[in-house]
Amino acid sequence: MIHFADRLMTAIDQKGAPVCVGIDPVFDRLPAAIRDQTDQPTAAFQAWGLGLLEAVAAHTPAVKFQSACFERYGSGGAAVLESLINHAAALELIVILDAKRGDIGISAEHYAAGCLADPVDALTVNPYLGPDTLEPYAQTGKGVFVLVRTSNPGSDDLQTLPLMDGRTVGQTVATFVADLGISRLGVRGYSDIGAVVGATKPNEIAELRQRMPQQYFLVPGYGAQGGTADDVKPCFNADGYGALITASRSVIYAGADSSDWSAPIADAAAQLNRDIAAIL
Amino acid sequence: MIHFADRLMTAIDQKGAPVCVGIDPVFDRLPAAIRDQTDQPTAAFQAWGLGLLEAVAAHTPAVKFQSACFERYGSGGAAVLESLINHAAALELIVILDAKRGDIGISAEHYAAGCLADPVDALTVNPYLGPDTLEPYAQTGKGVFVLVRTSNPGSDDLQTLPLMDGRTVGQTVATFVADLGISRLGVRGYSDIGAVVGATKPNEIAELRQRMPQQYFLVPGYGAQGGTADDVKPCFNADGYGALITASRSVIYAGADSSDWSAPIADAAAQLNRDIAAIL
Repeated sequence: MIHFADRLMTAIDQKGAPVCVGIDPVFDRLPAAIRDQTDQPTAAFQAWGLGLLEAVAAHTPAVKFQSACFERYGSGGAAVLESLINHAAALELIVILDAKRGDIGISAEHYAAGCLADPVDALTVNPYLGPDTLEPYAQTGKGVFVLVRTSNPGSDDLQTLPLMDGRTVGQTVATFVADLGISRLGVRGYSDIGAVVGATKPNEIAELRQRMPQQYFLVPGYGAQGGTADDVKPCFNADGYGALITASRSVIYAGADSSDWSAPIADAAAQLNRDIAAIL
Repeated sequence: MIHFADRLMTAIDQKGAPVCVGIDPVFDRLPAAIRDQTDQPTAAFQAWGLGLLEAVAAHTPAVKFQSACFERYGSGGAAVLESLINHAAALELIVILDAKRGDIGISAEHYAAGCLADPVDALTVNPYLGPDTLEPYAQTGKGVFVLVRTSNPGSDDLQTLPLMDGRTVGQTVATFVADLGISRLGVRGYSDIGAVVGATKPNEIAELRQRMPQQYFLVPGYGAQGGTADDVKPCFNADGYGALITASRSVIYAGADSSDWSAPIADAAAQLNRDIAAIL
């Protein structure tokens, strides 16, 4: 198995920009042309998702599936998620499952085995239960993105609290991530243990970049959540690598008012690619 | 809808002890009589789970399903989990889904809608993303158990770190939980917002009890994980309520070597009930 970070970087080079399309479907926001065919959300997700993946595949190295959107519909939603993951992999997209799992002991092993089953390439995980709970995911040899700093307002109530040792809670988690990742570098110098760092906190990003120099940052919040190209520039190292900028709503709903909804989605993905390539 | 804490307390009174059976199946540890019938883990979980629920229903007010064990097997596992949840509810058991979800914004709303869909009564959630991310679960009006203090060794590397204000990270989360729960009390004085507090940290439990006087504590780690009856006693308030003691392996695998595996499970559940009733 080729190291996750090396595979990701090759895919980024091939597509020309370090971007990721976030697939967070909400039934009411899908194209009318899809909703006219079915009132079953899972059936709509399946039809729309296949078209979406075809539309974005030329423009993005990676896609990120928001598990919550599918889990909302129980085991039927989980089955559609599996189907779309398989289709994304068949299109040679890097597949990130954004499920933010976290548990202790054997339960963490179960999540690692289930959520990182082939063809999923990487998983988002939650660090609250401690650094030992991150190891089962790392031991799969796949990609792991640990939640370090998120973009929601309430995240400041925990992640930026100062500890007695001078660090914040989030900076402490960054240290866990760097420590876990240091022994897991690919040939191009990046670890397969990465970090989730929200795009709306540019003032903190440079500091986190220093604490985690060999980590890939998965950066949500670009576009509809308010992050700009300038905001995300500090996420990158001087080599132009080290971050994967994710946009969701601005791409996936681009064609919602159009009967030919896939062409506007492809255009939006191409625009995302150009916007991020331009800052590097 | 009757308030979650009131329903839970009524169920505790009916069954005679504040206990919960944790359903964390691992295929290799199921009774040989089950594994002889099928080598499909999901089919085995279904057959075993129905028998398990029938065996424990007379002795426990509540069951807690570990989602990871089922998610390990993808959408097929999720379907078995749904089936067993429905059967538990039909047996009038309080159903807690231990899925430790956590996400921001609309994704938290999706998890709340999906994981707390009827007949699930309560969900475990992760606080790392901040107190605002707990609200969508609370707004369902169902039970919420927020991870505050866990029993794994590495939890000390984050949850007990001292903040500049003198509290630990875990104590800060306890404050979130108390603040969110204060306006959501049932007629018997307990909130539907509770906390997960590991049974193996008795020295910290009394302090957390003071910070969260109106919270139900969901206490895993009793029995096989090393917690004793003396360890869990400080989890309770002086009224004898306020905690739900969970045992898993010591009950669910009690009959694994026996062809009549359900009778030993029933005996172990009855013993758990007596052991916890004896300390109150």
